[in-house]
Amino acid sequence: MTNPTAAMLVIGDEILSGRTRDSNMYYLAGELTKHGIALQEVRVVSDDAQAITGAVRALSSRFDHVFTSGGIGPTHDDITADCIAAAFDAHIDVRDDARALLEAHYKTTGLELNAARLRMARIPDGAALIDNPVSTAPGFTLENVHVMAGVPAVFEAMVASLLPTLTGGAPLLSQSLRVMRGEGEIAATLGALAAEFSDLSIGCYPFQKDGVFGANIVVRGSDGARVDAAVTRLSRDLEG
Amino acid sequence: MTNPTAAMLVIGDEILSGRTRDSNMYYLAGELTKHGIALQEVRVVSDDAQAITGAVRALSSRFDHVFTSGGIGPTHDDITADCIAAAFDAHIDVRDDARALLEAHYKTTGLELNAARLRMARIPDGAALIDNPVSTAPGFTLENVHVMAGVPAVFEAMVASLLPTLTGGAPLLSQSLRVMRGEGEIAATLGALAAEFSDLSIGCYPFQKDGVFGANIVVRGSDGARVDAAVTRLSRDLEG
Repeated sequence: MTNPTAAMLVIGDEILSGRTRDSNMYYLAGELTKHGIALQEVRVVSDDAQAITGAVRALSSRFDHVFTSGGIGPTHDDITADCIAAAFDAHIDVRDDARALLEAHYKTTGLELNAARLRMARIPDGAALIDNPVSTAPGFTLENVHVMAGVPAVFEAMVASLLPTLTGGAPLLSQSLRVMRGEGEIAATLGALAAEFSDLSIGCYPFQKDGVFGANIVVRGSDGARVDAAVTRLSRDLEG
Repeated sequence: MTNPTAAMLVIGDEILSGRTRDSNMYYLAGELTKHGIALQEVRVVSDDAQAITGAVRALSSRFDHVFTSGGIGPTHDDITADCIAAAFDAHIDVRDDARALLEAHYKTTGLELNAARLRMARIPDGAALIDNPVSTAPGFTLENVHVMAGVPAVFEAMVASLLPTLTGGAPLLSQSLRVMRGEGEIAATLGALAAEFSDLSIGCYPFQKDGVFGANIVVRGSDGARVDAAVTRLSRDLEG
């Protein structure tokens, strides 16, 4: 596979406690697929420095890109920026370019740029800022790690700022076939198809609807003609 | 913290491609919190043997429990059971107790227990079966890893079968305070509170509504009187 690879790191106790249902993973997964970047792993960790730093190191060494979500606000539990800096042994402090963004923003809102808000200008040396058109406080890219906010509207805006700057691969194409038969009926046919079209990813996702079992079969690959051929063959085999 | 710890491993390309929005993580997180088991990490990996085996080994050595979701159906991409067996160097084959469950089930449905369906009776030696009241094919527990289906209705039924058999801790209690002020306004107050109530977890989760910034502050702990005290103090401090 020539497409760049990626991992995501979601940071936040609120996801692990079941208080909040994460939506950033689902959003990022879809955007990366469209952009031709293959998301291969996601981790969710708590607001714990050792957990964050360890996960960043492990993921950044194994994947082309790491996207993080959460923990870059002004409160005591927002420790992501410092953890990313620690993971790369980079110096971190309030940085002039980020401070200037916040000063301009708070001047227009009439709110005070107090010590807590100023924490949002803590950016590691060497990092590039990621634009935040929603609430100004920037994300940043350090090495191959892209650090973004957890609030979904802000996260999505930052992804939209960032993705066009990253080199993608051929978008991963997919076609689905919905079959109202149990997985166990079609498994042999699918296994044979997967063996013949070993360049494609063929997944089978069962569901139940009104007590009846069915499955969505999804064929994925970057070569549209091969995906077409596999789906055509599958339709014929399942009718036969 | 004396509560047992846990990790979750979600297995499935469909989550990583953005095709499917995971719901099992959110469900399990809530159930574990009620049961007094602290979910501390979640990983999502693709239908890849090395990724699954590596994650199982890493998580099972670090946490009291590991809960997996996905990849135990009858099709070629369902490789979870074999990967769990490999992670613990356990022998795996069709097991008589699981086969008997499937035989009885398919007899009543009139469907054939073919080779593909029989794969769902592949259970590692030494594993205990997890009851599946929805579609019969069982999950299993091997060592400290609980292996369950990915279809949400089946996953949830298996969790309901399993959880009462696990020793929980004191349920984690939480109280929330909704504040219509930006995080930056309240960060200093929260930081002081977190320092004083260091036995509690105090999280701040910002939101935007109609262009106004607010935050939900969540205080968590297993001692209800302490949680009360912290929230009372916080209400007073934020009014002052």
